[in-house]
Amino acid sequence: MIKTKGYAAPTAGARLEPFSFDRRDVGARDVLIEIQYCGVCHSDIHQVRDEWGGSIYPMVPGHEIVGRVARVGAEVSKFAEGDHAGVGCFVDSCRTCRNCRDGEEQYCENHLVPTYNGTEKDEKTPTYGGYSTRIVVDEDYALRIPSSLPLQNAAPLLCAGITTYAPLRRFKVGEGQRVGVVGLGGLGHMGVKLAASMGARVTVFSTSPGKEQDARKLGADDFVVTREPGWSEALAGRYDFVLDCVSAPHDINAYLGLLRREGALALVGAPEKPLEVAAFSLITNGRTLAGSMIGGIRETQEMLDYCADKGISSDVELIPVQKIEEAYERTVRGDVRYRFVIDVASLKGE
Amino acid sequence: MIKTKGYAAPTAGARLEPFSFDRRDVGARDVLIEIQYCGVCHSDIHQVRDEWGGSIYPMVPGHEIVGRVARVGAEVSKFAEGDHAGVGCFVDSCRTCRNCRDGEEQYCENHLVPTYNGTEKDEKTPTYGGYSTRIVVDEDYALRIPSSLPLQNAAPLLCAGITTYAPLRRFKVGEGQRVGVVGLGGLGHMGVKLAASMGARVTVFSTSPGKEQDARKLGADDFVVTREPGWSEALAGRYDFVLDCVSAPHDINAYLGLLRREGALALVGAPEKPLEVAAFSLITNGRTLAGSMIGGIRETQEMLDYCADKGISSDVELIPVQKIEEAYERTVRGDVRYRFVIDVASLKGE
Repeated sequence: MIKTKGYAAPTAGARLEPFSFDRRDVGARDVLIEIQYCGVCHSDIHQVRDEWGGSIYPMVPGHEIVGRVARVGAEVSKFAEGDHAGVGCFVDSCRTCRNCRDGEEQYCENHLVPTYNGTEKDEKTPTYGGYSTRIVVDEDYALRIPSSLPLQNAAPLLCAGITTYAPLRRFKVGEGQRVGVVGLGGLGHMGVKLAASMGARVTVFSTSPGKEQDARKLGADDFVVTREPGWSEALAGRYDFVLDCVSAPHDINAYLGLLRREGALALVGAPEKPLEVAAFSLITNGRTLAGSMIGGIRETQEMLDYCADKGISSDVELIPVQKIEEAYERTVRGDVRYRFVIDVASLKGE
Repeated sequence: MIKTKGYAAPTAGARLEPFSFDRRDVGARDVLIEIQYCGVCHSDIHQVRDEWGGSIYPMVPGHEIVGRVARVGAEVSKFAEGDHAGVGCFVDSCRTCRNCRDGEEQYCENHLVPTYNGTEKDEKTPTYGGYSTRIVVDEDYALRIPSSLPLQNAAPLLCAGITTYAPLRRFKVGEGQRVGVVGLGGLGHMGVKLAASMGARVTVFSTSPGKEQDARKLGADDFVVTREPGWSEALAGRYDFVLDCVSAPHDINAYLGLLRREGALALVGAPEKPLEVAAFSLITNGRTLAGSMIGGIRETQEMLDYCADKGISSDVELIPVQKIEEAYERTVRGDVRYRFVIDVASLKGE
């Protein structure tokens, strides 16, 4: 077994604290990654606080993991010692269902093994995430991080990057299209960079007028403040695609109204309360409201290679793990530009 | 001007009564259709009762119109005297916007002229629908009714037919797919016939156990009664496409849950209250909730030709116009198999 230091929530909503545990030995198809950075995703907070139900404690959160390969199993072919590698939101899946066979493992029909807050395929062994010094993972579920990507800025690509990249590709966002990005947070700022890099004319929709300058720096052409009622009227039917990155309650009908004929709004945030969707918002212009959840391993690798090619990565604020509670508070109130990333070196002394 | 007899609602919610009015003279590009049958659509009732707001009175409802061409203008090329012709939900549009140019006039961005309860492009002259003896319409907005289709059964194709055909085509329903049809009424029964004709394995979801035999006769392979909670659990992720024809409040999340990865539910009913859509219903499996509204002229003609080719038309109950109130009551309580059609000959004596 491989001794590992981490930070864990001992019970629902409790403060995270140092936690020592063992990783499994490196199997024939495994890689051992010495974790250097781990992004802080809003879903870490939801799960630590058991806001979605079913949380397992102690919980070591973290699914935006990057580091250096320290050891590889005998049958590993994709990685060598010293490579940069990453782990996203899941570390295994059934590999046999239609979705796994199609490379869309995130929708595994049998048992998706989440990187943390879940169990291995034995349905007993808990999984522990990236707020920790090392991780052992099957090479099929690890990603190559291109060497040109700065490692700490690459970490959030493993969740925020793929979550926004996948729907932009699925709905064929490209040159000359008008794309809206709702909410400029961890997901939204990646959505803006990626959509702009694909040639779209991007508008950011935000409740925070103070984010306009940032939005434009990230690649947005337009910025719309959505505080005043009626803000959407002049824009009705103008957009080809809207990426909705908001988890807080919001009027989805106003954003649906932006869409041209057969345009799509993709939901990547997950508001807790049901969305109130007016039938006419969809029937008018034959619009589509779609959900999207991260992406498969193949597409995640494609996204990482694309980001390296385009020189895209996440804007991050590096923190020691000891500041995690403050980072959670600031994330909840949207006070981060645009992703906290834990410098895992800070765990060494714990 | 062309003298016309009709049935009209004089005010919101009042009983329909005989009403005489003039149709415009036949212009160079117009056809005069002697109406023989007109279908009774649930939206006639909504509009007569001003349930969607903005109704114009007196209102002559009816947008599932078929009859015989009695006269054609000098420049008409698509029709000759004696042809069977039909009129659907609209009789004109701007012809210049992107949607009109794409042949999707139903989504006209400037002025869709509805067959009734609207105004002509002068924004003054009211339009009157098919509960009447004749109609004058620009040939570009009239449909050819293939002679092999029984005329009275063809009438509902102009709304119920195209409304279900368009999303089945848009979402590429075909051989071997599993398709659900929710609600077995005017729309649903066409959805079953059309989806089955395209090679899909069709399941009808209904609150009425008594409709099973009919569903199977119409072409369904399976029938699921949706009264008991939990009915959907065993079917999760099994369906490629769901056509939701229900206007009454219903649990959309249960139906979304039926969909496989990237499967779509198309909404063609229009519930008055917003649908409560759980974000996870969409995010799981990357599902899509789409709206769809009738169809363009080109696709409506394609649908009519397709129906003629496949021998598909609507199951109807023929009524004299004098029984319209009873037909409305029975439509509202779902007591019709599956569409009332007015025999316009009954207007002759009024």
